[in-house]
Amino acid sequence: MNGAFQDWMKSIQAGMETDMSAYMPAAGVVPAKLHEAMRYALLGGGKRVRPLLVHAAGALTGADAGVLSRAAAAVEMIHAYSLVHDDMPCMDDDDLRRGKPTVHVAYDEATALLVGDALQAQAFDVLSGADTAAVPPARLVAMLRLLAQAAGSGGMCGGQAIDLDSVGLALTQQQLERMHQLKTGALLRASVVLGALAGKDLSGEELHALHDYSRAIGLAFQVVDDVLDATADSATLGKTAGKDAADNKPTYVSILGLEPSIALAEQLRQEAHAALAPFGDNALRLRELADLIVQRKA
Amino acid sequence: MNGAFQDWMKSIQAGMETDMSAYMPAAGVVPAKLHEAMRYALLGGGKRVRPLLVHAAGALTGADAGVLSRAAAAVEMIHAYSLVHDDMPCMDDDDLRRGKPTVHVAYDEATALLVGDALQAQAFDVLSGADTAAVPPARLVAMLRLLAQAAGSGGMCGGQAIDLDSVGLALTQQQLERMHQLKTGALLRASVVLGALAGKDLSGEELHALHDYSRAIGLAFQVVDDVLDATADSATLGKTAGKDAADNKPTYVSILGLEPSIALAEQLRQEAHAALAPFGDNALRLRELADLIVQRKA
Repeated sequence: MNGAFQDWMKSIQAGMETDMSAYMPAAGVVPAKLHEAMRYALLGGGKRVRPLLVHAAGALTGADAGVLSRAAAAVEMIHAYSLVHDDMPCMDDDDLRRGKPTVHVAYDEATALLVGDALQAQAFDVLSGADTAAVPPARLVAMLRLLAQAAGSGGMCGGQAIDLDSVGLALTQQQLERMHQLKTGALLRASVVLGALAGKDLSGEELHALHDYSRAIGLAFQVVDDVLDATADSATLGKTAGKDAADNKPTYVSILGLEPSIALAEQLRQEAHAALAPFGDNALRLRELADLIVQRKA
Repeated sequence: MNGAFQDWMKSIQAGMETDMSAYMPAAGVVPAKLHEAMRYALLGGGKRVRPLLVHAAGALTGADAGVLSRAAAAVEMIHAYSLVHDDMPCMDDDDLRRGKPTVHVAYDEATALLVGDALQAQAFDVLSGADTAAVPPARLVAMLRLLAQAAGSGGMCGGQAIDLDSVGLALTQQQLERMHQLKTGALLRASVVLGALAGKDLSGEELHALHDYSRAIGLAFQVVDDVLDATADSATLGKTAGKDAADNKPTYVSILGLEPSIALAEQLRQEAHAALAPFGDNALRLRELADLIVQRKA
């Protein structure tokens, strides 16, 4: 990884931490425990892959920095809420996340439920507060709708439902792909499209290219997750390793094997690069993010 | 209750059932179980108080029927999701709702969690799909933000958090009022303001009058809920009666006593009427709804 990309990432990650903190009610505001727990779930960690995608895609269209910040925070809030709810005992029942106790462990289950619910609402609050001098209201409405659809039953929640119903089943690669395209792919795609849309209306061709890119990095992200879950240890991952196998969940590694999974991730990285060809130099950060997603170690 | 009001209510209730069904993915769409459970939670019952308020407030400003329908469905989806999550074992642990098994009983806890999450996203999807020929995009953005803030930690979720923290505590009437103003009041107020806002931008005075009305009916709604919880049976209520007392939750009846609570509800009904004075005849349905909220038996 080159230094300029590293610096760009660090600057976005640090900026998001500051901005997201400012977009949230202060920890002392009533109800204090809920706001403290929301901050615990959202701040102080995470790779911020989705915000990085929002900002990288914003470079394609010269989007306003303030609008990008709100779009990135909104997507990250949706992602953070989904982690809080997924970790709960009635779902994946996980105790460790980003190296810290999960919200229902650090607080309690009722608080974890409310933290997720309130973070989802906060996401729409933050995005709807974008400066309409910098993004026309009609486009902002389209962005809000895109986020809602990516989060809902036709997107992330739908993928999670399919995932739950798949435990112990022998999925085909195609069924597994379909599940991940909803569970994690929908929000990754929303991140890319929101970032670009923050700058201008998109042509059908541009949208198509961004969908191709998003599909490739979304699947690559999951393939690499499965590879890491099978090969890394919990301390490196910051979450419980080997959990999918223990839970009898279908993964790319269990369906394809380890080496073919690693090869698939590399193939998807190249597909992501190819999809960005029409955007030329403006797509530099999106290309580097595809590399990062495939080459990461945690 | 007069016949014309009864007919109006029935027509709105029936229309909302049709419209909300159309705004939801069909029960057979993948993931089928999630969509079936979302429909179970949303359709086929409920007094539809919030949609009635949206439509009644729309009459103040001559709002477009299609925009009102989407605003009403969005508010009802937020309300329905909150009931699904509130009924879960880690919250109120209730088995009966609107005379039917609650979602986590009819399905399972993981599905109930996802149903609530997906219904919240669906609410923002439906409202953001309003016809921007009938409502200017800038005003639609304001409506979406209002809904997000009413649903989040400064509104409904915040009230629920305070409610959780209040179990077994001796609240003052003022503290109880503050909790209910967030837990149920925020969404009732959003219903009224969204309905009016669907028709035109509101002046500070108009907004102030609508807030006064909403505050009065919101508190009246809760006072009457507490009176009914203490006096009616489960079959009439369609939910478990006497539950608040059994759970040692503070209520108006436990703080003020039964007769003073009934008197307070009547006083709030009169305050609601007084707040509507500036709107004249256009506020007919809002006045009748205030009467209904106080005089209902379930």
